[in-house]
Amino acid sequence: MPQTIILNQRPVGKPKLTDFKSIITPLPVVGPGEVLLKAIHVSVDPYLRGRMSDAKSYLPPFELGKPLSSGMIAEVIESRNDNYSKGDYVFGLLPWSEYQSSDGSGLRKVDGQQAPLTAYLGILGLTGLTAYLGLSEIGKPKPGETVFISGAAEAVGSVAGQICKILGCRVVGTAGSDEKVELLKSQFGFDEAINYKTAEDLNKDIAKACPNGIDVYFDNVGGNISEVVFFHINSFARLIICGSIAIYNEISRPMSIAVQPFLIKKSALMQGFVVRDFAPKFPEAMQQIATWMAEGKLTYNETIVEGFDMIPQAFIDLFEGKNKGKMVVTI
Amino acid sequence: MPQTIILNQRPVGKPKLTDFKSIITPLPVVGPGEVLLKAIHVSVDPYLRGRMSDAKSYLPPFELGKPLSSGMIAEVIESRNDNYSKGDYVFGLLPWSEYQSSDGSGLRKVDGQQAPLTAYLGILGLTGLTAYLGLSEIGKPKPGETVFISGAAEAVGSVAGQICKILGCRVVGTAGSDEKVELLKSQFGFDEAINYKTAEDLNKDIAKACPNGIDVYFDNVGGNISEVVFFHINSFARLIICGSIAIYNEISRPMSIAVQPFLIKKSALMQGFVVRDFAPKFPEAMQQIATWMAEGKLTYNETIVEGFDMIPQAFIDLFEGKNKGKMVVTI
Repeated sequence: MPQTIILNQRPVGKPKLTDFKSIITPLPVVGPGEVLLKAIHVSVDPYLRGRMSDAKSYLPPFELGKPLSSGMIAEVIESRNDNYSKGDYVFGLLPWSEYQSSDGSGLRKVDGQQAPLTAYLGILGLTGLTAYLGLSEIGKPKPGETVFISGAAEAVGSVAGQICKILGCRVVGTAGSDEKVELLKSQFGFDEAINYKTAEDLNKDIAKACPNGIDVYFDNVGGNISEVVFFHINSFARLIICGSIAIYNEISRPMSIAVQPFLIKKSALMQGFVVRDFAPKFPEAMQQIATWMAEGKLTYNETIVEGFDMIPQAFIDLFEGKNKGKMVVTI
Repeated sequence: MPQTIILNQRPVGKPKLTDFKSIITPLPVVGPGEVLLKAIHVSVDPYLRGRMSDAKSYLPPFELGKPLSSGMIAEVIESRNDNYSKGDYVFGLLPWSEYQSSDGSGLRKVDGQQAPLTAYLGILGLTGLTAYLGLSEIGKPKPGETVFISGAAEAVGSVAGQICKILGCRVVGTAGSDEKVELLKSQFGFDEAINYKTAEDLNKDIAKACPNGIDVYFDNVGGNISEVVFFHINSFARLIICGSIAIYNEISRPMSIAVQPFLIKKSALMQGFVVRDFAPKFPEAMQQIATWMAEGKLTYNETIVEGFDMIPQAFIDLFEGKNKGKMVVTI
């Protein structure tokens, strides 16, 4: 019987399995103009943690007792809509249901011949767009500048780093294991990478890895690493605040050194980046990413977890850094 | 005998009189191409506190045992330079010396007929430029938006507020006394003003004064007020970080709530503003300010302290909020 995963209770601190609940839902009836979708690949992402809280944000909170949702690749298994045929694959921000009907709004067909289907959840999806548009709209890295990336081995960070290398920058990143540090240098072409978990003196390590200071900071993590980065920013630095995974689970409001004096001293800019704000630029950005991929200039990793009922655990594992690149659940 | 004020020791925390020292210096000899200047009005400003520390910033630190310097209106009392005549008044960033020679570089003639000479240290000087360019380059207020200004009764804040009223915004400010709060509403046309020192619940007061949230924050103060403001910013808010007087004197690095989650939630921008970065835009900005003044749309206050040897005390008094508007020492 088809499953749907709902929000059972709002997580307090770190999410746990009992925050989620799997329920049985009947196979939907396909009305006129509708399609029946079968979930194939489901994206789990740190930003979903924000929507599990009750607080207003750039997306509305998930409702208690209602299905959660995220980016999904689904197969059209029945169609009463002229725009879709049986066998089509589509991308959409869809509820975590094994089967669902849709009137087609918000869906986009994807081509499994052109790229693996999971790529549309990652480098050819919001991940790639986030990396590209965060850089082009806020970071604006110039050749020869130093770009520092936190969470560099993750989905967004690894793409951002490769783009900056294409643009002629010095690229330095942090990651949470020696294996990831090695990957950053060998697979993604980073100039230097730092294991922030084993670093004895992160401040010294950053100074050594960034002898000319930091011009662009692509921040996927927040927390302690960001505090140290402020001591190394150059005049007119641009700080892309893209994620705060380090503090998403904090129950009280996390404290930090006051950043205002650093911003004034360095005439620096710090901007919260939400990729959806730049939707009109998606086609142009996607084109550039696809071109670089075709030229072999961009590579990516993904961690595939199997089984619809593994979605909650895969999400929880994000906060343990158990993924390498994009985390995808395949049904 | 002519006096010069030097930096005797670097202040630790709040500056005190013994951090400064007055020394006697001989009347300078005027070489070919030079002018002899007599100090008339000296500007004291919170940002000077930063230069008294040893830390690198956008301006080099003052040197121990050497004269301090700031904006000054001086009279040319002898000239061997074709560009200046005896009796001219000039503005320059000049050492705190009663008399000094200059080759004229960095000086700008000012016209005491067009405006009071002290105005060139304030509304027609860096104060006015800071307010205008902070808004035009970062804040970009639009008609109907709400602008929140900390340190609103001070030199920069009061000009910024008036400009935003001219532009058709709702303007709300904070100040540190009931008298200043009254001034903001009666003299400067603010829609609402809050005495942050006596506020029982600043959060509630801001919510009430800004029912539609805050679109632009002109921050002259930093510290606790800024923390509360973050809870009220709207999507796409712009935060002009212009001054941190509340924490200039802190000995340890002040802590604050982490701002990154707010910036992401609201796609907000926060930028350190240093007026000198925008020097090419000074003439255009100055023209606009002069026009508004001529139209009677801008007014200002100044606190005049008399006597060259009062410069250190006047500077110290800034941190007690003893000034109303621009603080000027007249010799």
